[in-house]
Amino acid sequence: MSPSLQHFASDNQAGICPEALEYLLKSNDSGHEPSYGDDAWTQRVCDRMRDLFQTDCDVFFVFNGTAANSLALASLCQSYHSVICHELAHIETDECGGPEFFSNGSKLLTAKGENGKLTPDAIEALVTKRSDIHYPRPKVVSITQSTEVGTVYTVEEVRAIAAIAKRRQLKVHMDGARFANAVAALDVHPSEITWRAGVDVLCFGGTKNGLPVGEIVVFFDKQLAEDFAYRVKQAGQLASKMRFMSAPWLGLLDNDVWLRNARHANAMAKLLHQRLTDIAGVKVLFEPQANAVFAELPDHAAAAMRARGWKFYQFIGAGGCRLMCAWDTRQETVERFAAELRSLCIV
Amino acid sequence: MSPSLQHFASDNQAGICPEALEYLLKSNDSGHEPSYGDDAWTQRVCDRMRDLFQTDCDVFFVFNGTAANSLALASLCQSYHSVICHELAHIETDECGGPEFFSNGSKLLTAKGENGKLTPDAIEALVTKRSDIHYPRPKVVSITQSTEVGTVYTVEEVRAIAAIAKRRQLKVHMDGARFANAVAALDVHPSEITWRAGVDVLCFGGTKNGLPVGEIVVFFDKQLAEDFAYRVKQAGQLASKMRFMSAPWLGLLDNDVWLRNARHANAMAKLLHQRLTDIAGVKVLFEPQANAVFAELPDHAAAAMRARGWKFYQFIGAGGCRLMCAWDTRQETVERFAAELRSLCIV
Amino acid sequence: MSPSLQHFASDNQAGICPEALEYLLKSNDSGHEPSYGDDAWTQRVCDRMRDLFQTDCDVFFVFNGTAANSLALASLCQSYHSVICHELAHIETDECGGPEFFSNGSKLLTAKGENGKLTPDAIEALVTKRSDIHYPRPKVVSITQSTEVGTVYTVEEVRAIAAIAKRRQLKVHMDGARFANAVAALDVHPSEITWRAGVDVLCFGGTKNGLPVGEIVVFFDKQLAEDFAYRVKQAGQLASKMRFMSAPWLGLLDNDVWLRNARHANAMAKLLHQRLTDIAGVKVLFEPQANAVFAELPDHAAAAMRARGWKFYQFIGAGGCRLMCAWDTRQETVERFAAELRSLCIV
Amino acid sequence: MSPSLQHFASDNQAGICPEALEYLLKSNDSGHEPSYGDDAWTQRVCDRMRDLFQTDCDVFFVFNGTAANSLALASLCQSYHSVICHELAHIETDECGGPEFFSNGSKLLTAKGENGKLTPDAIEALVTKRSDIHYPRPKVVSITQSTEVGTVYTVEEVRAIAAIAKRRQLKVHMDGARFANAVAALDVHPSEITWRAGVDVLCFGGTKNGLPVGEIVVFFDKQLAEDFAYRVKQAGQLASKMRFMSAPWLGLLDNDVWLRNARHANAMAKLLHQRLTDIAGVKVLFEPQANAVFAELPDHAAAAMRARGWKFYQFIGAGGCRLMCAWDTRQETVERFAAELRSLCIV
Repeated sequence: MSPSLQHFASDNQAGICPEALEYLLKSNDSGHEPSYGDDAWTQRVCDRMRDLFQTDCDVFFVFNGTAANSLALASLCQSYHSVICHELAHIETDECGGPEFFSNGSKLLTAKGENGKLTPDAIEALVTKRSDIHYPRPKVVSITQSTEVGTVYTVEEVRAIAAIAKRRQLKVHMDGARFANAVAALDVHPSEITWRAGVDVLCFGGTKNGLPVGEIVVFFDKQLAEDFAYRVKQAGQLASKMRFMSAPWLGLLDNDVWLRNARHANAMAKLLHQRLTDIAGVKVLFEPQANAVFAELPDHAAAAMRARGWKFYQFIGAGGCRLMCAWDTRQETVERFAAELRSLCIV
Repeated sequence: MSPSLQHFASDNQAGICPEALEYLLKSNDSGHEPSYGDDAWTQRVCDRMRDLFQTDCDVFFVFNGTAANSLALASLCQSYHSVICHELAHIETDECGGPEFFSNGSKLLTAKGENGKLTPDAIEALVTKRSDIHYPRPKVVSITQSTEVGTVYTVEEVRAIAAIAKRRQLKVHMDGARFANAVAALDVHPSEITWRAGVDVLCFGGTKNGLPVGEIVVFFDKQLAEDFAYRVKQAGQLASKMRFMSAPWLGLLDNDVWLRNARHANAMAKLLHQRLTDIAGVKVLFEPQANAVFAELPDHAAAAMRARGWKFYQFIGAGGCRLMCAWDTRQETVERFAAELRSLCIV
Repeated sequence: MSPSLQHFASDNQAGICPEALEYLLKSNDSGHEPSYGDDAWTQRVCDRMRDLFQTDCDVFFVFNGTAANSLALASLCQSYHSVICHELAHIETDECGGPEFFSNGSKLLTAKGENGKLTPDAIEALVTKRSDIHYPRPKVVSITQSTEVGTVYTVEEVRAIAAIAKRRQLKVHMDGARFANAVAALDVHPSEITWRAGVDVLCFGGTKNGLPVGEIVVFFDKQLAEDFAYRVKQAGQLASKMRFMSAPWLGLLDNDVWLRNARHANAMAKLLHQRLTDIAGVKVLFEPQANAVFAELPDHAAAAMRARGWKFYQFIGAGGCRLMCAWDTRQETVERFAAELRSLCIV
Repeated sequence: MSPSLQHFASDNQAGICPEALEYLLKSNDSGHEPSYGDDAWTQRVCDRMRDLFQTDCDVFFVFNGTAANSLALASLCQSYHSVICHELAHIETDECGGPEFFSNGSKLLTAKGENGKLTPDAIEALVTKRSDIHYPRPKVVSITQSTEVGTVYTVEEVRAIAAIAKRRQLKVHMDGARFANAVAALDVHPSEITWRAGVDVLCFGGTKNGLPVGEIVVFFDKQLAEDFAYRVKQAGQLASKMRFMSAPWLGLLDNDVWLRNARHANAMAKLLHQRLTDIAGVKVLFEPQANAVFAELPDHAAAAMRARGWKFYQFIGAGGCRLMCAWDTRQETVERFAAELRSLCIV
């Protein structure tokens, strides 16, 4: 396997981490297993989640992030309600209308905000802007942790958002496609930026952390999870051979592999950021707190890098190129990318 | 692994077949891969599907059967249309309203029919029953192949249904959760019971045939597939690490493993049927043409079998117990089940 | 106006009753009025409804019965829930999938039942039939009062249904497109067959009782009405010039015109029933308790009556012809219809 | 009736114009009439619409503007598509998510634009911004004629928008809640700003032009209207006593009353604009081309006017106060409003 087989296009281009794979294989050795989540592997993961978060939460498995976020949001609002989120929120920009589809029409109300973050003031402004029945009533605040631009809400920021949400009778949803990266970056207990801070529902991303497929929806407010199992089933998100979705989570949870994976990806992003900062003509756009680096590259350099086979996306929302690091991004890949880019930036 | 670890509750309680697993592992060795289906594995499977069916069809991957059927049907009708199906059809009885949800309200019009099969006459009766705008207009016929009661539509039966469908301007959808078992049972080319017979869209089941997760939607009429990729994405059915859904299909397709798996399951059902037929007090309900056996067991015997740890479902729709065989059901499991049951039936 | 201009096709083919029309005209004389229901006429009707039912209910106006029933049901269940109703229920047979559309997929579970009526046993059977997540969980019982076949639930029958509903945690919805006819037939206070009997939501029909357009949704359980105004608005059911929908109700409510209209229609049905019973070859199908008569007419006689210009529908659900009487059906129309039919039935 | 009973809050606060009312009464004299639009009145209006537009269009009646726009848009796009509109478009700001609900999730993509108007460049920018499946594909351009800020698209502007739409394979929808005001303002044949300019579907507003209730959806491209009658029915928009919705249109169409009504409202807005322009401290915001005037009033003056009983809205979208004139706004009302305001603005 040559280093050229690694890229910075997305952390979902990485494969399965060894620990997760081991549990996948192990769960395949157990013969016939009850389907639809009635197996022992799935029960174990649910219990482990409750241990992890130190609270009696309800845990559901779905296939991907679109579904996790859309179903969670749909359970928090009716079609004539609205969801407040940042204008760069994944649910707004990259789900092809999934939240509107699953909720049968709930509108997303977007706010601007520095570093990809919602603020209490922006939420307050959206909640108070309209109160007539001709506009969908806000019921949910959705924040992405870590954010779409690689930043991380501090514990205080999450708390402040949850506080205004509670005051305005909004539920708090956290899109945690890269939740692990946020926990790793903040170095806090996962409960500190979720239920202890006032989050009602967390979509805990597994895929970008090293799983083959699957995300978990965690309801800290169990009342909100009423009949959610039916919702999951109807929405085509109930895996029949569930063990192959759930067992690999044990690989992430044992020995905190999920945090190790996240810390590594974060560290690679930090390294890449350092290297890019040095290069003349490259302008780094956000401080990389998680596993993403955003930078404006000289056009000719970006083109030349792509011509050499490097893959990375232009970030339409905020400008610049998005460079994602994964659980398996090698230091040499980062160094090689930086070196090649540097050589192209020298005129 | 002891024989007691096999059951007859469902073919989705079996694990991953070795050939599929091998490709899963292989696809994990290729480093970073484009996501969302832009990888080479996925392209290969799509091409292989076109080869298999000997026609230029459009191929899409989704996570499970609920989604495959619901999205396929939603692409064939609007919310104010209806879908004709058998009263025992899985889409009617076991999707928790998935088809209605994804189509935003399309009604299922159900017909009775012997051996779990729709007939041209039943379709005609439903189409001509109403023609006013107060009742949703039929646009689709959906048949399950093999059926929910373990029977198989013959080539002629599929053709006759498709003929009446065309005459009435209905599209033909095939729920092929156990398509492999039907092809194996009929011993025909897969095209003979699909597009050559007049089927427009096939949901080709992989999970019950030995995959960990995933079904394929095949549009033989490519016009019907317009923008279906967007539909899949919005509906939360687009896998980011798609290779882990697609590559295992190569394990099924190479050397016709999919047919071998299906033939084995069918053979086990036949064996089980033979054994049960002999047992006094047991009444077999349908002729097992695929991998399911339905039988009325004496109450005390069924209870005793369950007490011994055997798992199998009561079939609410048609009465009796449903006994499913999988790609990995061992002959000894069948013999042991039959022997234990026999001993319990002797008064 | 010649008697030939009256028919028995439907009570919605009659016009506006004088008292309702008078209020329509009066409300047009008041110059500019607040829109969307903030006018004084609308408030008056809401208050009058609370007086009428002797309870503090929430009252909403919608344009027609499809919307009234569909929105009411959608407020009682989520997409993965189900609604129990009679197989001849209008919501099942004549709303073109409206309930499924507005609820985004809730399934209607239908039961048979004599005289077009649901029974506690049928409800119990449907509730207990399935309890797995593969089938939508029942949340509502919907009964039509008076029924689609012109019968009327007694107070005791409504109470018994509501009792089983409460025991099974189902909400009770009453499709009262012809609620007035039921109240008139039973000669009870309207509260006796609604909230006092355990009904949670009533769709109170105005159109068939003499209004130009409009139905009222009455929530006896006010908690169920939370944000229902938003639902009405989003669903395109909020009239801007609301006074023209609401004011005419005052014409129905003053001096119990609604009951007078209903009693008249019921009496005409009784008369028609009497006349038909006498005619050889005509078989009356249900005892007419409200304003509908169902009868099997000799084919040649039905055809000849239609050829003479009489309009009435074949009733697909229960067989026979449906003959509806309206608030304005004249005795001479009934007598003439009966006489002509009699003359045609003499061989 | 005192002048104080007129306001500038909305043109939907006016009543029924005499000519429409006359037909409403006339249609009530015809005894029993076929329901659901099979009556002669409705057929006449449909024919008259085809005459008016000089083309063989398909015509449907719905209850209000939310429904007209939402159902029209839903017929032009699937849930995973998007609709391009101005950020001040009524469908975006005042339908409580109706378009998203009826389409089951289609996203509205909004653009800025001077004078409340979309431009070809803005459309082009939105169409070309994204082409991946993670973002809903644009399928429709929706323009409001006259606009939400009282301006009017010229024939050339409509044509230019339709041209870019056709080039990008987008359908063109016109929200014509105040279509009459636009036709009156431009003094063109109605076909010139609709199908001859490239508009596919028009929602033709009746309520604000003098009807009690009801809008018309006109499909110039008849293919797009396939099964639209079913859609209308399912969506709870099919009036049973349709004549009372349709007949009043004859009052508007005879002798071009619809244009007379619109011209009057436009003239009153022009007069009001003239008067306001003179008043020191008042800043008029848009050139009034139709029947709306937008103006910033000194805070104390606005408050004082409201305290005197005048009703008008703050316009959240564009700032200032919105003053709407209706078909019945009297010159003396305008003069009195202006005079009172002037007196309040003198310091």
